[in-house]
Amino acid sequence: MANLQTHLRVPGPTPLPDPVRSAGSWQMVNHRGPEFAALMGRVVPGLQRGFRTVNDVVLLGASGTGGLEAAVVNHLSPGDPVLAVSVGAFGERFAKIATRYGADVTLLAIEWGRAAEPAAVRDAIDGMRRGGREPAAVLLTHNETSTGVTNPIAALAGEVRDVAPGALLLVDAISGLGAVPFETDEWGLDVVVTGSQKSWMVPPGLSMLALSPRAWEAADRATMPRFYFDLKAHRDAAAKGSTPWTPPVSVCFQLDVALGLIESEGYPAIFARHAACAAATRAGLAALGFRLFADPAHASDTVTAAVVPDSLDWKAFSAELRRRGLTLAGGQGKLTGLVFRVGHLGHVSVDDILAAIDILEEALVAAGRPVDRGAGLVAAVRAADAVSRPRPAPAGTPA
Amino acid sequence: MANLQTHLRVPGPTPLPDPVRSAGSWQMVNHRGPEFAALMGRVVPGLQRGFRTVNDVVLLGASGTGGLEAAVVNHLSPGDPVLAVSVGAFGERFAKIATRYGADVTLLAIEWGRAAEPAAVRDAIDGMRRGGREPAAVLLTHNETSTGVTNPIAALAGEVRDVAPGALLLVDAISGLGAVPFETDEWGLDVVVTGSQKSWMVPPGLSMLALSPRAWEAADRATMPRFYFDLKAHRDAAAKGSTPWTPPVSVCFQLDVALGLIESEGYPAIFARHAACAAATRAGLAALGFRLFADPAHASDTVTAAVVPDSLDWKAFSAELRRRGLTLAGGQGKLTGLVFRVGHLGHVSVDDILAAIDILEEALVAAGRPVDRGAGLVAAVRAADAVSRPRPAPAGTPA
Repeated sequence: MANLQTHLRVPGPTPLPDPVRSAGSWQMVNHRGPEFAALMGRVVPGLQRGFRTVNDVVLLGASGTGGLEAAVVNHLSPGDPVLAVSVGAFGERFAKIATRYGADVTLLAIEWGRAAEPAAVRDAIDGMRRGGREPAAVLLTHNETSTGVTNPIAALAGEVRDVAPGALLLVDAISGLGAVPFETDEWGLDVVVTGSQKSWMVPPGLSMLALSPRAWEAADRATMPRFYFDLKAHRDAAAKGSTPWTPPVSVCFQLDVALGLIESEGYPAIFARHAACAAATRAGLAALGFRLFADPAHASDTVTAAVVPDSLDWKAFSAELRRRGLTLAGGQGKLTGLVFRVGHLGHVSVDDILAAIDILEEALVAAGRPVDRGAGLVAAVRAADAVSRPRPAPAGTPA
Repeated sequence: MANLQTHLRVPGPTPLPDPVRSAGSWQMVNHRGPEFAALMGRVVPGLQRGFRTVNDVVLLGASGTGGLEAAVVNHLSPGDPVLAVSVGAFGERFAKIATRYGADVTLLAIEWGRAAEPAAVRDAIDGMRRGGREPAAVLLTHNETSTGVTNPIAALAGEVRDVAPGALLLVDAISGLGAVPFETDEWGLDVVVTGSQKSWMVPPGLSMLALSPRAWEAADRATMPRFYFDLKAHRDAAAKGSTPWTPPVSVCFQLDVALGLIESEGYPAIFARHAACAAATRAGLAALGFRLFADPAHASDTVTAAVVPDSLDWKAFSAELRRRGLTLAGGQGKLTGLVFRVGHLGHVSVDDILAAIDILEEALVAAGRPVDRGAGLVAAVRAADAVSRPRPAPAGTPA
């Protein structure tokens, strides 16, 4: 069943490289034993290098949403004024979690498809203060998976640091971290959340968080209730090479293997590959007549949203694409039915993007759409070539 | 690394059968697509048969502890009087979760190694009422993994139903369900929690819960905060063949395969096999001179705790066992260093138990202990034979 799909182009779960698939079949070990402690001893420093941080990194047995909940409930108390900067469905979700646990949330809702700007964040903080609310935290989304927009986190975080130095910076970096340049420590981020099934090329099941010393201090004061997501329990267990609750052992095996693949490719090459895949996707879709949803100045290098033309029945068309071997994602939240999304993160090459564009082209031609066969492919490959991209040497070639 | 261990005899994660291992290596699919919906359409009814329930069953991307948290926070409000019946470390954990979220918890702490009795539960409820507390829920542990005791849930639940018919019955069945007879509906249980890494022969990563109509009604009133563990969001997504957040897809593949293996063996044969393995474990350990920790009348068929003799350095001895290919579990909570535990649940045969007893015997002899070589094996195999146990036909034998 699982292998009939040849091109999984959704923004997570992302396709698994063969060595990662293989690690998923390993026999269990005792999660309180020396093998697991050795794994933790490799994975945590590997993630620290990926996050670009010297802060503690913990592993939660949960999806990214669980990681966002952990980011909220460990560092805030009911009633705490919080600024939630939302540019899409996942920004709304982050805000909703904080609201659910009793934070006093001010929502800065940016038009979907656009990025947040530092001036808007500053104005929102000013507005909170006029209402007598000093922000205890600012919630930011790095890469908004629902719209295909990447926020300028360095600039946004810098602005918050300037105007509200006491506010914690809690960042949803689930679908961007590891695929594009990101600097946890240089940007002064307090909590950064990612998920195994995105750029890390691992099945879903783990959320990974980096926590600054300021975040730990806040955790000492925060009174929102938490047990499963208690990060201090995770930190204490990590010091003994384990986790407080039984971790998803096979997903941990896979993360260990994937981090090895990532480090052997190297982050600069990974970032270049994502830039090339993203450029190919955008150019290919545009050449096929689709309007891209995101502001081009902030278009994501991991996921592209395109507008569904009025004349196209997305449900029927996506089923047709699936029959031809291509799985894309529909729209989320208020964009359901209005956009579709192409994931290009993790284990993906420009040739994978060309295959996706080919299938899209083929299906559009078959549907009688006025598409010039090959136009999408030519546009995609030229756009990719215009972005510096190292090609891997063929197997067996001396380095 | 992972495969050097030949005998993993901890009470979870349990060893994986080969077809389950293989499914862990399958390529990802879209968790919002038709393949995953088809999987949910097999797994949910399979679990309902395992739980012996017609109630809704939901899958959470979490360990069993996450499932316990979900059981508490979806059905209770801060201040609700709750009776927590604890017979060990996991009973304490369940109580602690309820306390953490603001329940008014009365702890009925039974001596570790013993089971709870209906009369004690009735007395505790009477005591609560004398203090003006009408229990909104009673928390029960089916099989206490820290002590190797199985509570008589049918009798305990019946007592609660009689004396406090309004109280919800929330049952931690993580390490017993699927391995020993269990009747969710016949016993009138409102919330039953289990975990993938126990009798289900699947890696950790999923907690599965059955929810009665009464539980759903309580969820409408309950005000403890929840987001990731919001069970109504899970029920709504399940109706569309999905989960509200990205599920641990590979673990779901593995659960699907494991349920097929389980149903082809059949629950009566599985229960008999666990009874035989448990009898062999207890008899073998006793013949080697170990004192069993649990009250024999309530000894668990999935995990056995034995007392560490004063003269034995458990840390050094367990490392020696590991070198010889046997991984056992130490004690938990206040039993740390005082007992060790042998897991015999999931993918385990009497021959696996004999191997464990053999290695224990060998290591005891090597340590100069007065052990009659072979005595443990003889006692184990005789005890197993005394329990009715069907042997699987050799591969290729006509049925």
